[in-house]
Amino acid sequence: MVPPDGYKAIERPSQDVINLTIVELSKILPNRVSTSMAVREQYATDFSFHEISPADAVITAHSSEEVSKIVKICAKYKVPIIPHGTGTSLEGHLAALHGGICVDLSEMNSIVEVNVEDMDVTVEPGVTRKQLNEHLRDTGLFFPIDPGADASIGGMTATRASGTNAVRYGTMKDNVLSLEIVTPDGSIIETGTRARKSSAGYDLTRLYVGSEGTLGVITKITIKLFGIPEAISSAVVNFESLEGAVNAVISTIQWGIPIARIELLDEWTLEAINKYSKTSFPVKPTLFLEFHGSDASVKEQAEKVGEICGEFEDNQFKWTTNGEERDTMWQARHDAALACVALRPGSKLFTTDVCVPISQLVNCILETKKDIDEAEIIAPIVGHVGDGNFHVALLIGPDQFTSDLKVANEINSKLIKRALDMGGTCTGEHGIGQGKMQYMRAEHGLAVDIMKTVKRSLDPDDIMNPGKIVAV
Amino acid sequence: MVPPDGYKAIERPSQDVINLTIVELSKILPNRVSTSMAVREQYATDFSFHEISPADAVITAHSSEEVSKIVKICAKYKVPIIPHGTGTSLEGHLAALHGGICVDLSEMNSIVEVNVEDMDVTVEPGVTRKQLNEHLRDTGLFFPIDPGADASIGGMTATRASGTNAVRYGTMKDNVLSLEIVTPDGSIIETGTRARKSSAGYDLTRLYVGSEGTLGVITKITIKLFGIPEAISSAVVNFESLEGAVNAVISTIQWGIPIARIELLDEWTLEAINKYSKTSFPVKPTLFLEFHGSDASVKEQAEKVGEICGEFEDNQFKWTTNGEERDTMWQARHDAALACVALRPGSKLFTTDVCVPISQLVNCILETKKDIDEAEIIAPIVGHVGDGNFHVALLIGPDQFTSDLKVANEINSKLIKRALDMGGTCTGEHGIGQGKMQYMRAEHGLAVDIMKTVKRSLDPDDIMNPGKIVAV
Repeated sequence: MVPPDGYKAIERPSQDVINLTIVELSKILPNRVSTSMAVREQYATDFSFHEISPADAVITAHSSEEVSKIVKICAKYKVPIIPHGTGTSLEGHLAALHGGICVDLSEMNSIVEVNVEDMDVTVEPGVTRKQLNEHLRDTGLFFPIDPGADASIGGMTATRASGTNAVRYGTMKDNVLSLEIVTPDGSIIETGTRARKSSAGYDLTRLYVGSEGTLGVITKITIKLFGIPEAISSAVVNFESLEGAVNAVISTIQWGIPIARIELLDEWTLEAINKYSKTSFPVKPTLFLEFHGSDASVKEQAEKVGEICGEFEDNQFKWTTNGEERDTMWQARHDAALACVALRPGSKLFTTDVCVPISQLVNCILETKKDIDEAEIIAPIVGHVGDGNFHVALLIGPDQFTSDLKVANEINSKLIKRALDMGGTCTGEHGIGQGKMQYMRAEHGLAVDIMKTVKRSLDPDDIMNPGKIVAV
Repeated sequence: MVPPDGYKAIERPSQDVINLTIVELSKILPNRVSTSMAVREQYATDFSFHEISPADAVITAHSSEEVSKIVKICAKYKVPIIPHGTGTSLEGHLAALHGGICVDLSEMNSIVEVNVEDMDVTVEPGVTRKQLNEHLRDTGLFFPIDPGADASIGGMTATRASGTNAVRYGTMKDNVLSLEIVTPDGSIIETGTRARKSSAGYDLTRLYVGSEGTLGVITKITIKLFGIPEAISSAVVNFESLEGAVNAVISTIQWGIPIARIELLDEWTLEAINKYSKTSFPVKPTLFLEFHGSDASVKEQAEKVGEICGEFEDNQFKWTTNGEERDTMWQARHDAALACVALRPGSKLFTTDVCVPISQLVNCILETKKDIDEAEIIAPIVGHVGDGNFHVALLIGPDQFTSDLKVANEINSKLIKRALDMGGTCTGEHGIGQGKMQYMRAEHGLAVDIMKTVKRSLDPDDIMNPGKIVAV
């Protein structure tokens, strides 16, 4: 498959064209366009180590129709569009590499319709996961996907996010029923219905989930909800070795135990967490577990997992139904990134993630740890190990930023090569953005040309978040 | 979005071009090309009421490389390619509407690699689901998707199949990890890895799942496996009314009970089954249920569902862990289509399916039953009701075939309009094929143009199973 001829990646529009675009945008949405450098920089800043690259202006949209109008104006002038949710990206998705207009969707934060009987909800893209679950509290339903940050549902959809409980509830790919999309010519389409399944044509929903703003702007998302479990319990298990921990995970999955969360933390992460969160977890390879179900079933699950863990090592299995203990544990887990930064005050996080077949997980982590040790860099590892997905948080700087960054890049490259050699992927949940474009060909081979063909046919002028995913 | 210019749907190639193609194919694969009318008709015949339309020749492929060579020759001459698995299609997917070459994949039936630790398997497209589960028996793993017929995994992938236990295990969309595809120019690509999740670029896997042979030929499929449950139990529940049955299903799902199968059968189906399978199920709206889990958990699930059913009606809940009783029940369910035909010997089945949000299911079924009664046609209804998906099997002929077909088409059109008005889809699991193309615009609106754009960019000469999904 050769991508279509006559396609040229977009170039940065001239200042005149930008000015014309801004004037037209200001006419249709007065007082919603900002060109102040402070605002532009703020909207270009994410949670990553990538250099920021501000858009020429930021415009705040309040409805799908407004987004459509904005896109039509940008399309007319061939000016790039960078959609913005909460700015929690980890791979430089928000950089306006070729200039253009940042479309702020954070004020499109209405929960449009909750269907309790059908266990689904339609939201605007700026709704965050915490806001949604707060809203749902009285319905007995919840939205499980939890990438850590209080990300927007739009951003989570755009990056195919997942997180701690994907092992039980799946990723965004599995939980989006339908999307409303503003296409690069400003049309508004719907990609699906509220039916739980469909064989009616190409799966456009899944095409836009994970497309990182490069094919269109997500303006509504209909997602599945789940019943809040009757009972929730959790457990902490310490192991002497990483192998013991991962082997226990493999066995748990094979037993078909419907575990809700199964998180691995290495010694460094535990040390960081203990310091930061004033906890006293033993500094050993550790699993944080959570069980959802009926009272009897969470007990049965925990007992079975306790037994499995005991088969691999004589370890400490601490089970609890106490909600406070559980909250402390997960808060500590969520604060792991901040805790790691505190290990080296003033440093920045170079966060990367890969996902491998679970049989390869121990080797992949151990070889990576070896690289880290040899490089004498601090880099805690945490993982959603039920999925074979783990994160390395390399601490950069503050004193030797450039050389640390070089080391981190080298470790990252080796990690990705290793994951690909093991039959895995260069990112389990962070996305490609700019950061991992260089690995697309190694992972996908000729299939990259199919992706390029799709991008070029659906966005012929390359105005949608250009420079990302398939730009090289 | 306007589909690209300069694209013309393929026309039937001239006999000279077909002859040239067949000569070249015979050269590379001697003794594998058949032009006998009996074979061509056999390979054009499916399980549907659609008129058969034989290809100009049938060629049997034994490897991905052979498929690639076949596609390259067909591409050179712009001759249509119709991939063939087991021929169990229900919407006329196999018709060579513009002539061309049927590529028989049924002999590509090797199980390439079973990864027990990772709980996945890679198979060739001609492997059937029963063959796969037979092969897996000693591993403790199984592949759950069960569309009834012993379909090929390739065909199930191509139509995004699901079936009785999708409510617990998902559909093909949820269970394919990666595909090998021969693209319309004969390239061989891989759409993913064996990692359980990935955010690395566009989700090509999901683009090809459900593409019904219109974007490329599926030559390998890597799918998830599951542990065979420690315990399986089943139950039969009879209700006085359809409402009672469906309301019990809604409540079961809302309670988050991880039920493995929850099938609705109406009185007509029960009557047909009793006659055909010599069973004695009460002739009432009935749920067939199955529970997977530990001994304790299947018992707990069944008790809870029994309680829920009792809340809606004073019904009969018959629970059993007896394997033979369970087999009898599911065999009867699987034979429902044959049993229905036997209600009117010599008749043909006009089978259709829709899927609606579950809150709409009772109304959708009751209104459809009214249409059926008024038309005085026999049309049993069975449903995968946990998903909101149900089937109507309209009996056509044998004596008044044409007028029955007209009536069936009218009932189908009304059913689909009703499902769409209720926020549902025109097919939950059968696919579009030729049969439902006319409803694509009503369901998808402008999004059809996105699908057409994708088709046109990935198959610019329209050689892949032309005349299907987005051809009108």
